[in-house]
Amino acid sequence: MTLAEQVLNGNIRAAARLMRDIDDGRPQAIDELKQLYRHTGKAYIIGITGPPGAGKSTLVDQLTASFRKRGNRVGVVAIDPTSPFTGGAILGDRIRMNRHSCDEGVFIRSLATRGALGGLSRSTSDVALVMDAMGMDIVIIETVGVGQDEVDIVKAAHTTCVVMVPGMGDDIQAIKAGILEIGDIFVVNKADRDGADRTARELSNMLEMRNAVEGAWNPQVMRTEAQRGVGTEELVEEILAHRDFLFASGTIDNFLRERNQRHFMDILRDAVLGKAMLFMAENDSLDRIVSGMCDRCIDPYSAAEEIISKMMPDRKNCS
Amino acid sequence: MTLAEQVLNGNIRAAARLMRDIDDGRPQAIDELKQLYRHTGKAYIIGITGPPGAGKSTLVDQLTASFRKRGNRVGVVAIDPTSPFTGGAILGDRIRMNRHSCDEGVFIRSLATRGALGGLSRSTSDVALVMDAMGMDIVIIETVGVGQDEVDIVKAAHTTCVVMVPGMGDDIQAIKAGILEIGDIFVVNKADRDGADRTARELSNMLEMRNAVEGAWNPQVMRTEAQRGVGTEELVEEILAHRDFLFASGTIDNFLRERNQRHFMDILRDAVLGKAMLFMAENDSLDRIVSGMCDRCIDPYSAAEEIISKMMPDRKNCS
Repeated sequence: MTLAEQVLNGNIRAAARLMRDIDDGRPQAIDELKQLYRHTGKAYIIGITGPPGAGKSTLVDQLTASFRKRGNRVGVVAIDPTSPFTGGAILGDRIRMNRHSCDEGVFIRSLATRGALGGLSRSTSDVALVMDAMGMDIVIIETVGVGQDEVDIVKAAHTTCVVMVPGMGDDIQAIKAGILEIGDIFVVNKADRDGADRTARELSNMLEMRNAVEGAWNPQVMRTEAQRGVGTEELVEEILAHRDFLFASGTIDNFLRERNQRHFMDILRDAVLGKAMLFMAENDSLDRIVSGMCDRCIDPYSAAEEIISKMMPDRKNCS
Repeated sequence: MTLAEQVLNGNIRAAARLMRDIDDGRPQAIDELKQLYRHTGKAYIIGITGPPGAGKSTLVDQLTASFRKRGNRVGVVAIDPTSPFTGGAILGDRIRMNRHSCDEGVFIRSLATRGALGGLSRSTSDVALVMDAMGMDIVIIETVGVGQDEVDIVKAAHTTCVVMVPGMGDDIQAIKAGILEIGDIFVVNKADRDGADRTARELSNMLEMRNAVEGAWNPQVMRTEAQRGVGTEELVEEILAHRDFLFASGTIDNFLRERNQRHFMDILRDAVLGKAMLFMAENDSLDRIVSGMCDRCIDPYSAAEEIISKMMPDRKNCS
C-alpha cells in the first residue's frame, strides 16, 4: 500500500511520515500528494498569526478544544521560527497542547525547516493538504506573523485571525498597519492586562479608517483571555460567521481560485528551479558561473538567460 | 546614453530611476544591471537587523555620519515592512536621516514592494549593486529581522549587526536564538535603559554556549545609545575589525562564492518562472489548471510536471 493509501485509511503514522518527507523536501512526497489531491478540499482552514508572545499557542489550544466539543476533527500546523543555519526548530521541543495528546481527533504537527527548494508556504500548504485528506474538518495554521513568508502562509487560510496583546508599544503600530489587511478577525488576547481597551480601540479605529467595500466582510475586534478560556467560544462563533459569509456571498469561489493559483505557482517555481539545478549539475555550469561572478567577467543576469536558452531550445528550431 | 552609463557617470537621478525600476520588477532594469555588473564588487556591505523599535534607523544614521567623517561615501538601503495587499511602504514616508539630505556622499533608498516575480532579497541585492556601481564605499542594508526573507537579505552583507534593546521580554528569547547565528556583531541599543546589563549578559552567555570553531570570528556584544551617539564609534571600529578578519583569514573567498551563488540562484529562479509564466500565457494553461484544481480533477503536482515537459522537450527526441 502506498503512503497515500495508508493516509486515506486513517493511518496516523503514515501521515506523520509523509509530513516529515514534505518538510524535508523529499521528492517522493510529490507522488503521494498527487494521489491525495482529489480527496482534499473538504477541510476548513483557519490561520492564527501575530507577534511572538501574543499567546497564539494557548489560543489554538482553546480553539481546538472548542471545535472538538462541536464534533469536529482538528489538525494543527504550527510554524516555528527556524534557525537559518542549523535548520532546527527553536520551539519544536516546546510541549504543545498536552491535553489533546491522547485524542485521536486531534493531529498536531510542527513545521520548522524549509526544504532545499521549497519555501515555507509551499510546505505548509502541502501539510495542510495531508490533514485535509486524513479527514480533519478543521485545520489550524499557527504562525508568527511579520515577514512576507508568514503573510503568504495565512493567505492559504479561509479565515485569518490576527492576534495582538495590549501594550506592545508604539513600534508595533507599523506592524499593525501591515497585518490590518490580512485579518478577517482581530483578537486582543490577554485582555485582562492594562491597555487592552486602548489596543482594541486603536485596532477598531484603524479598521474603520479603511475604505469599506460594499458587501465586503467587516472584521471585528474580539477580546480573549486564552489562558482562562474567556472569549474563545465567541471567537469560534465569529470564525463560523466568517465562514458562512464566505459561502453565502460567493466570495469563496474567488478565494479558492486565488489560493489554488498560488499553490500551483509555488509548486511550479520549485519544479522549474529543480530542473534548472539538474541541468546545471550535468554541465558543471554553476561552478563556472559563480567563479566568473567572483572575477566580474560573468554577470548573473546574462548567465541565467544563457542557461534558460540552453534548457529550452526554441521549439521552432528543433522540430 | 543608457541608464547604466549615467549611473557610472555619477548621475544620482539615473540611479534613483534604475532602483525604482528594480523595485517595480521591470524587466528593462536587467539590461542596465548587466552593464553595471563588472563595475561592482568594491563596496563593503553592512547589514543592520533587529526587531521593530530597536532604534535601527537612528543607529544607521550615526554609522553613516561616522563613515562620512572617515571620508567614505555611504549608501543606505532601508527595507520597510510592506503591506501585503496595497504593496505600499508603511514607513516609507518616515523622514529618514534629514541631516544627510544635502550630502552628495550619502544616498538613501527605501525598498518597500517586491516585484511580481522577484523576492525582496533579489531586489535588495540588485539595489546594493547599483550603489556599488555608483561608487559608494559602504552600503548599509537596514531590515526588520524576523522572517526568512530578512535572513536571506542580511546574508548578502559582509558584516551583519544584530540590534537588540533591553527588556523586550522572555518571548524574544526564541527570536534571539534564531538570529544568534546570523550576527557578526551584537548591539544592545538604548543601553541606558533598565535591563541593558541583563540583555547584554544573556546575549554573551548564549554566544559562549555555542561551540566555538577554531579560527572563526568571535562575535562581541556592544552597547550603544544611538540617540546620543554613545558607543557608535566603537561599533564602527568593531565593524572594521570584522572586515579585517574576513580578508586576513581568507574567509572572504568562501563568503563571496556563497553570496554570488545565492544571488545567481535568485535571478535564475525569477527567470525560469518568468519563462514558465510566458509559456502558460501563450497556451491559456494557467486558467485551465486552476479550474481543474478547484474541481479536484487536476492535481497541481502533475500539472507542473506537464508544463515543464512541454516547455523543455527532451532534446534527444527533438534533434
